[in-house]
Amino acid sequence: MLRSCAARLRTLGAPPARRPGLVWRLFSSEKVIHKDYGLPNPSWSKDLRLLFDQFMKKCEDGSWKRLPSYRQNPQIFKDFQTRFVDPRFAKEEQMSKAQQFTRSFEEGLGFEYVMFYNKAEKRMVCLFQSGLHLQGVPGYVHGGAIATIIDVTTGTCAIAEGIAMTANLNIDYKKPIPLCSVVVINCQITKTEGRKLFVSCAVQSVDEKTLHTEATALFIKLDPDKRLT
Amino acid sequence: MLRSCAARLRTLGAPPARRPGLVWRLFSSEKVIHKDYGLPNPSWSKDLRLLFDQFMKKCEDGSWKRLPSYRQNPQIFKDFQTRFVDPRFAKEEQMSKAQQFTRSFEEGLGFEYVMFYNKAEKRMVCLFQSGLHLQGVPGYVHGGAIATIIDVTTGTCAIAEGIAMTANLNIDYKKPIPLCSVVVINCQITKTEGRKLFVSCAVQSVDEKTLHTEATALFIKLDPDKRLT
Repeated sequence: MLRSCAARLRTLGAPPARRPGLVWRLFSSEKVIHKDYGLPNPSWSKDLRLLFDQFMKKCEDGSWKRLPSYRQNPQIFKDFQTRFVDPRFAKEEQMSKAQQFTRSFEEGLGFEYVMFYNKAEKRMVCLFQSGLHLQGVPGYVHGGAIATIIDVTTGTCAIAEGIAMTANLNIDYKKPIPLCSVVVINCQITKTEGRKLFVSCAVQSVDEKTLHTEATALFIKLDPDKRLT
Repeated sequence: MLRSCAARLRTLGAPPARRPGLVWRLFSSEKVIHKDYGLPNPSWSKDLRLLFDQFMKKCEDGSWKRLPSYRQNPQIFKDFQTRFVDPRFAKEEQMSKAQQFTRSFEEGLGFEYVMFYNKAEKRMVCLFQSGLHLQGVPGYVHGGAIATIIDVTTGTCAIAEGIAMTANLNIDYKKPIPLCSVVVINCQITKTEGRKLFVSCAVQSVDEKTLHTEATALFIKLDPDKRLT
């Protein structure tokens, strides 16, 4: 829920909230540029790398675009709080330590994923590899982790149409996903009605022979004149 | 999905897979007894502690029961693999390092929760405090994290009737949940049809004035003669 706004705001790439002087920055070990988690790292399996390369090729003619993905940005937090959040809830000091759920794990242990967007088709594809800390029943991905990556992918698909929040997720679990395997998540906007955006979603094995999960999602575009709480 | 079986199997409290000699165990710093995560720790807020105490009082006459919660148990992993999982997927060495999704976070940063069960009413209550690593949109809990704790609570409610897996989750997100706050999740089995178990669920604020989320879940009891994949 609501993660979609965060994702979109993150892509704006606003500068950090505190701007120390140039000298401080030159001698500081703190990275000023945020790490992009939507790029290969040593934990990625051969399957995930092969799919990544295939989609990067599709990006060459401009029909598809890889989306960058960041863990946190204090300035964006502040901007969002100011715009949508009741000041009673804007406990900035504590919240500046918060991390985006799907990017809060150590490399390889949680959600390893990258998303590609096709604007003409209003379609999002997410390549997802589950880590050892996403276990539900022994040997398989937790249903909540599957719901999470579905929320992330459908949400990012929806916000291409405007800042929106999840109103409904309806998920059919058909075949369990083996832990540490790679799956492909396909989403598409199927209908828009005023501020409502309807998105369909399918989670399949890499060879497309197994349909693991199907889902529909409903998102509501946020009203910039209204606060969330 | 499927986490319900794991939860139930964990409560059986089987011994660790490898049984070193008594001398080794006496001099080892490794804890033989698994930590119960369903008990208060320093990260629990006053709200969570107060609710915990209230429910522990309800347990005194035996109508309610607190459920223990563990991170991992290698022996249980082996048992489940043998019973339900195709040997092709039973990569025991790697999988023994896997962790239950909702218990894989550092204390206070992820899912802090405890569940209480009322057998006569077929009802489960989960007291849930979200940590800073569960953020979706800035300042609020990720929709996927909410789906996860709903899956955990409805699943644990369902498996009181038999080992089962999630077939459907249908979630209506009504009001966002502020990060680090405490909510109360109420679940109840509403209907059973053969191997199908229908569970309803509501996520409310501690003062019961705000209905954050509503959901329904469908679970299917597992057939002990059939493997999962």
